Amino acid sequence: MPELRRDPIVGRWVIIATERARRPSQFQRRIDEPEGGLCPFCPGNEDKTPREVYYSGRSPAAPANTPGWKVRVIPNRYPALMIEGDLDRQAEGIYDRMNGVGAHEVVIETPEHTKGLGDLGDQEVTEVLFAFKARVVDLRNDLRFRYILLFKNHGSAAGATLDHSHSQLIALPVTPRQVAEEIEGARKHYDHRERCIFCDIVGQERKDRSRLIYENDEFVVFAPWAPRSPFETWILPKRHESNFEAEPKERLGLCAQALRTTVRRIGSALGRPAYNFMVHTNPLREPPSASYHWHVEVMPALTQVAGFEWGSGFHINPVPPEEAAEFLRKVAV
Amino acid sequence: MPELRRDPIVGRWVIIATERARRPSQFQRRIDEPEGGLCPFCPGNEDKTPREVYYSGRSPAAPANTPGWKVRVIPNRYPALMIEGDLDRQAEGIYDRMNGVGAHEVVIETPEHTKGLGDLGDQEVTEVLFAFKARVVDLRNDLRFRYILLFKNHGSAAGATLDHSHSQLIALPVTPRQVAEEIEGARKHYDHRERCIFCDIVGQERKDRSRLIYENDEFVVFAPWAPRSPFETWILPKRHESNFEAEPKERLGLCAQALRTTVRRIGSALGRPAYNFMVHTNPLREPPSASYHWHVEVMPALTQVAGFEWGSGFHINPVPPEEAAEFLRKVAV
Repeated sequence: MPELRRDPIVGRWVIIATERARRPSQFQRRIDEPEGGLCPFCPGNEDKTPREVYYSGRSPAAPANTPGWKVRVIPNRYPALMIEGDLDRQAEGIYDRMNGVGAHEVVIETPEHTKGLGDLGDQEVTEVLFAFKARVVDLRNDLRFRYILLFKNHGSAAGATLDHSHSQLIALPVTPRQVAEEIEGARKHYDHRERCIFCDIVGQERKDRSRLIYENDEFVVFAPWAPRSPFETWILPKRHESNFEAEPKERLGLCAQALRTTVRRIGSALGRPAYNFMVHTNPLREPPSASYHWHVEVMPALTQVAGFEWGSGFHINPVPPEEAAEFLRKVAV
Repeated sequence: MPELRRDPIVGRWVIIATERARRPSQFQRRIDEPEGGLCPFCPGNEDKTPREVYYSGRSPAAPANTPGWKVRVIPNRYPALMIEGDLDRQAEGIYDRMNGVGAHEVVIETPEHTKGLGDLGDQEVTEVLFAFKARVVDLRNDLRFRYILLFKNHGSAAGATLDHSHSQLIALPVTPRQVAEEIEGARKHYDHRERCIFCDIVGQERKDRSRLIYENDEFVVFAPWAPRSPFETWILPKRHESNFEAEPKERLGLCAQALRTTVRRIGSALGRPAYNFMVHTNPLREPPSASYHWHVEVMPALTQVAGFEWGSGFHINPVPPEEAAEFLRKVAV
């Protein structure tokens, strides 16, 4: 059983994977792995993966775990957290631990092995976002989970171990720091000004335009004021909404358009680099929040986290966001 | 002039390097770079670097910037921050910025091109720590600086761009988040218990021994309870001390012994991996603190920061610290 351990000084949690069979010298993280050269995410190889928990596109009359799907969601074969069991919170002297209970799923975004997310059509990307929403709506019924992080690792420099285009979700028994800090920062802004800080940001970026990359009727894409890495890009709904899973189908379609153009522009500008994206949303079963605002953060994997970043929490970014935005605005897609 | 920008939601600062000559497509960070294959850190090439700000080993009668040194400190040729100018704090709508004022120096740890820090003798590593202390004692007189981060990037996977063994320091006009969070966490612990949490950790680790790697009369080396990455290792003074630069020479000698054995053990166990270390200490000109405790964090660069880590602030670590410590305790050095 993996363990969740809390750093006693700063309160940061880490997941310690404790698979007894492995030796400490085999330190590499295994999230998913090909079997004998065969891609387990390709149609026809459905028996090489755990049984699906969601699919779209296949006729409901057809048997499960067979080809014909457009999007397929499966439990991760090498999960960071285990779905069974109780948290069993314990102290060990001055330290805190709990069982690594959670869900870890893989969203196979397309049956086509060679296509990246940016190569898909708007409707196909929309199907991926529908899958995200459906899994959140299902998993939030499990009262052990407080948060679901939706994310994508694309390319080995961004932590992916399989080429076939996929994203992931991890359901956690605690709200992660990164999100808790955003919620707290947004709450403070709201307490002072009775306005959502993300709505203020959307307003300033649309007016200023120097960091703006793309917008449609419902979503705006821009380089954030203080990006951690070159070409970091945020996608925000223009209308205030705290919960990703509350978005109706039409708006998810426009979000898909914004996400797809972002990935295509980054790919075209930088030669299809490795990248990550993360969806930040209100914690599970929280009432809608007037101060928090869900969004997507996209980070090309171009620089390394080194001693200065580890030690300070600062990031050094050699590309001003105004220059990155101009570049991404003008690139041909 | 580089800029410091603050994220308006979580308050995280980033350094935006704004060298106008570069194009946004040349995004790679340049900290130091060889010139025409020649190592600028080797003796005889002193004229290839900015003029030294500290040296040890060379006779004071000999001219500056010539061979004969054991340790040599120079301004970084491609500094993340600039030493001249004022902070000039400004708002830009809802955003905050200031000039990127600070110092960025390189500590050349040895004249020998092929030796790593772990290959040096105890006395040589002690000379490196003396250089760290001397630079902090000098730079703290500059009242624009609030904090100096001492760190090392070794190997390209850990962000180093030159092979010749060196570490770095960056003097900052603000206390970095990572340190501020530690100070705040330690202060809360002290408020409740009137004890330093780091002293409590030293006590529990020395008693428990399962995560202990090495100790001498003054320093203890162990795998922390909640390590962010496999084989993360901390070095703490056993006696309470908040400020690195307050350590007397004898104790720095024992710290050098602990640091050297840590680097050697990690190198021997894992095949000389890339790694970082960071020194965390009390901010400049703060009075000695009863609750904070300076220390060194060593992180082999074995795993990647991917979407889950970026999005959550959680880390997934496949090696339990008890197994890592056992491995590092037993390895031949």
